[in-house]
Amino acid sequence: MSPSLPLRPFLAKMDAYKPGEQLDGPRIVKLNTNENPYPPSPAVLTEIRSEAERLHLYPNPTSESLRRALAAYHGVELEQVLVGNGSDEILRLLIHAVVGPGQALGMVNPSYSLYPVLAKAFEGRTNYYPLIDLVRLPEDVFGGPEPIFILPNPNPPVGTLFTKAEIVRLCRERKGRMVVIDEAYVDFAQRDVVSLLVEFKNLVITRTFSKSFSLAGLRVGYLLGSTDLVAELMKIKDSYNMDRLSQVAAAAAVASVESMYRNRDRIVEERDRTAEELIRLGYRVPESHGNFLFAIHPRAAEHYSLLRQRGILVRYFDQEPLREGIRITIGTPEQMRALLAALKEIVG
Amino acid sequence: MSPSLPLRPFLAKMDAYKPGEQLDGPRIVKLNTNENPYPPSPAVLTEIRSEAERLHLYPNPTSESLRRALAAYHGVELEQVLVGNGSDEILRLLIHAVVGPGQALGMVNPSYSLYPVLAKAFEGRTNYYPLIDLVRLPEDVFGGPEPIFILPNPNPPVGTLFTKAEIVRLCRERKGRMVVIDEAYVDFAQRDVVSLLVEFKNLVITRTFSKSFSLAGLRVGYLLGSTDLVAELMKIKDSYNMDRLSQVAAAAAVASVESMYRNRDRIVEERDRTAEELIRLGYRVPESHGNFLFAIHPRAAEHYSLLRQRGILVRYFDQEPLREGIRITIGTPEQMRALLAALKEIVG
Repeated sequence: MSPSLPLRPFLAKMDAYKPGEQLDGPRIVKLNTNENPYPPSPAVLTEIRSEAERLHLYPNPTSESLRRALAAYHGVELEQVLVGNGSDEILRLLIHAVVGPGQALGMVNPSYSLYPVLAKAFEGRTNYYPLIDLVRLPEDVFGGPEPIFILPNPNPPVGTLFTKAEIVRLCRERKGRMVVIDEAYVDFAQRDVVSLLVEFKNLVITRTFSKSFSLAGLRVGYLLGSTDLVAELMKIKDSYNMDRLSQVAAAAAVASVESMYRNRDRIVEERDRTAEELIRLGYRVPESHGNFLFAIHPRAAEHYSLLRQRGILVRYFDQEPLREGIRITIGTPEQMRALLAALKEIVG
Repeated sequence: MSPSLPLRPFLAKMDAYKPGEQLDGPRIVKLNTNENPYPPSPAVLTEIRSEAERLHLYPNPTSESLRRALAAYHGVELEQVLVGNGSDEILRLLIHAVVGPGQALGMVNPSYSLYPVLAKAFEGRTNYYPLIDLVRLPEDVFGGPEPIFILPNPNPPVGTLFTKAEIVRLCRERKGRMVVIDEAYVDFAQRDVVSLLVEFKNLVITRTFSKSFSLAGLRVGYLLGSTDLVAELMKIKDSYNMDRLSQVAAAAAVASVESMYRNRDRIVEERDRTAEELIRLGYRVPESHGNFLFAIHPRAAEHYSLLRQRGILVRYFDQEPLREGIRITIGTPEQMRALLAALKEIVG
C-alpha cells in the first residue's frame, strides 16, 4: 500500500471477491458462472433499443416503474421493494446498514462466498455455521446472535432448498435480528418464502434478474422487505443507482414472464436428466434446486482440469468442504451432451 | 425506524441526497439537472443494440476494455483507471476507503451537496471551507487536516474553474492526504489537471459520462489515480459493478469523441451568449466553466417559481449561501430562447 494515501486499515486486511472466469470465445462450453444459456424475452431487447434514445437524461432515481411492476408481480407494496445494480448492490446495502466494526454476519458453510467479503468491507467478521453433509442446517444456526444472517435458498454451490418451516424458525428465533433469504435461484425451485413477509418484519428476501431471467449482463437485483428497511436503505444507495436501460429491460422481463418460465422449465428438465447421467458415471449428486449441479467425486479437482483442457469450463472451489466437487451450470442440451461425453472419457 | 431491525445508528441521523426533479413531459423545458440536450454519438447506440444480444452472460468484472480506452484517451496506465456506476459510485468508494467513524471529509461551500451525504453514510463528518464571494478559495483550505478533500473543478453550482497553481498547492500542502478533483464538468472548461497525476500520488481525478458525453441515463463514471489506490478500491466495488451495455457504450463514446466535442462547443457558445443576456436582464452571473450558469438576483426564489409555472425547470437551492441564485443548465438555443423570453416577462 502506498504511504502517500490515508486508506483505512481494513482494506489491507481484505481480498476482493473472486468471480468465476469470464472467458470469451466461440469454442468454450461455459458452465462455470450459472448463467442462463437462453436469451431473455424479445420484449427486453425492444425496450432497450427504444430507451437508448433517451440516454442523455438522468434515469428515475428510485426505479419507480420497475418497483411498481415487481410489487404487483409479488403481491407486495411498492414501498417494500428496493432495486439495485445486481443483487450484489442489495447485499452490500444490507451489510452496510447492519454490520459495523467488530460486528458479525452469520452464514452457513458452504454457501455464497461473497458475503464474508462484504462483511470485511464494513470492518465486520463472519460466523460460519457448517452444514451437516453439505446440506442440513445445524441446530445452533437458528438462535444465533448475529444482527444479520444470510441464507441462500436454494443454497449454492450444492443447490439445497431449505424448508419453509426452517425459514420460519430462523425468523422466529432470530427476532429483532435480520434474516436475509437470498432467492437468487428460487425460480428453479418449487417454492419461495415471499408469503412470510407479512408475518416476519425481520425477514428480507433478495432476488436477481441474472439467473432465471437471463440478464446477468445487465445487473439488476432487488429486495423485498419492510417499508422501514427500504426507506433507510434508500439513504445509502447511490442516488441514481439504476440506469435507464436496466430499468426498462427488467420491467419488460417481468411483463413477459412466460418467456422466463419456458426457459426455466427447459433448464430444470435438463438439470434432472444430467444429474441422473452423472450418478451413472459414479458421481454423488445432492439434489439441486438451482440451475446447477454439484457433482462429488474423489478426483473432482483432476476432472475440473481435464474438462478445462477440453474447452469445457466448470467451477472448482479449492477450499473446504468443497474440494471433492465440481459445480456444473446447466446449459443447453448440446452443451450438456458435450460435458457428459467428455466426462465419460475422463472417468472411464 | 422499526424496532424489529438492528440498523446502525448513523442511518437515523442522515438524509438521502436529493437529486433535482426528474419530471417527464414533452412540454417541460428541463434545465435543472445539467443534462446535455444533445444525443450521444450514434456509435453509442449501435454498440448498445449489438451488445444487447449478449445480456445472458456476465460482463467483464473490471471493465477492462473500457479502462484500456480511457487509459489511452488520457495517456495513463490501465491500472490507474477505475470505472464505476456513475461518478457517484466512484466518490462513494473513495469515501468508503478513507472516511471512518468521526473522521472528516473536507470540501468548499458552496459545492456539490452529495459529498456530505456520503461522509455521513460512513459515519464521518464534513468540514466546510466557505468560498470567498462564492468563487475564491480561502487561505486555510490548503493545509487543512482532513484525510480526504474533494474539490469539483469547475465547481457547481457557480461554475468556477480553479487554477492549476491552486490545485498544485492543495496537493503539496495536503501531502499524505487525498485530494480529489471532481472533473465532472471539465470538458466545458479550458484545462484539466490530468498532467499533475505524475507528480502527485495523493491526487485523484474523477470524471463522468453524464455531462459532456450525453450519457446521464447510462451511469458511467471513472477515476484516474495511483495504481495502488485503484487496486485497493477494486476490493470494495461490487464485483460486477458495470453492466455490458454501459461498458461498450462508454467505450464507443470515447472512440467517437469528436461528436462530444461538437456538442460541447455548441453548449459553450450558448452558455456565453446566455450569460450576456442574463447580465443585460439585471442578473449577476459569475463566470462559469460548466454547462450551466448561476444567475444571482435578490428575487431569485420568486423567479424560480415563476419559471416553474411556465413549465421551465431550473434549480433553486434553498440553503445559504445560494438563496439569491438560480442554476440554469445550458440547453438548446430554442430552450434558452424560451427561458430568456420568460425571464424578460418576469424581471421586466
